[in-house]
Amino acid sequence: MRTLGVMFHEALRDIVESTDGSLAGILMDSQGARIDSYARPGAGFDIDEVGVEYGVLLGSIRKATEQLAAGVTQEVAIGTDKMITLIRTLGESYYLALALRPDGNFGKGRFMMRTAAPKLMAELA
Amino acid sequence: MRTLGVMFHEALRDIVESTDGSLAGILMDSQGARIDSYARPGAGFDIDEVGVEYGVLLGSIRKATEQLAAGVTQEVAIGTDKMITLIRTLGESYYLALALRPDGNFGKGRFMMRTAAPKLMAELA
Repeated sequence: MRTLGVMFHEALRDIVESTDGSLAGILMDSQGARIDSYARPGAGFDIDEVGVEYGVLLGSIRKATEQLAAGVTQEVAIGTDKMITLIRTLGESYYLALALRPDGNFGKGRFMMRTAAPKLMAELA
Repeated sequence: MRTLGVMFHEALRDIVESTDGSLAGILMDSQGARIDSYARPGAGFDIDEVGVEYGVLLGSIRKATEQLAAGVTQEVAIGTDKMITLIRTLGESYYLALALRPDGNFGKGRFMMRTAAPKLMAELA
């Protein structure tokens, strides 16, 4: 039997493995708690630590966008000298995030997350 | 004589006019105060109001990234159902921001801001 957990893990693996330069993907709730994650083998990337950091970051962004009358937030990207973090909201209660190297395929990562979102949301509802 | 103000305005106009679907660009300090801005004619876009909202948003993102040990923030993008906002840091004290329609040319906007940044930073230093 194919469980929900397996479905989430396969979706994350598909996003990570299909995106050049990606390090890891994580599915979280709005409190930053991890539902599932997938790190590219050999990426040397602590996805659990990043998950906690994402939680802090998302909390602040959510507060800010509540004050920003510019529509409902769907995507956030943060680029630093060390990495790019792509975040996509899945309704009001869940987030999907992908970490890439600065030279990673940002556009492909965005595309993979956008196309995976409806499937993930259907299972999370 | 070509003043700094003219140079900033021309740089913002170049970014906005070269990016399909863009609405307006703004150059701000880290307190969200506007140095200069350029709105596409007929965009019907209140860049002053957005400048204030950017200030609120940037304050929260800066606080969050201080807690995120993932490098120095260089770019932030926020996508909603109504618009995309691209923000690029210019050193520690200034920001460049571009507002686009959701179907605007995100990649071109990013490219235009990245290539304009060194020139703007040289004048702001």
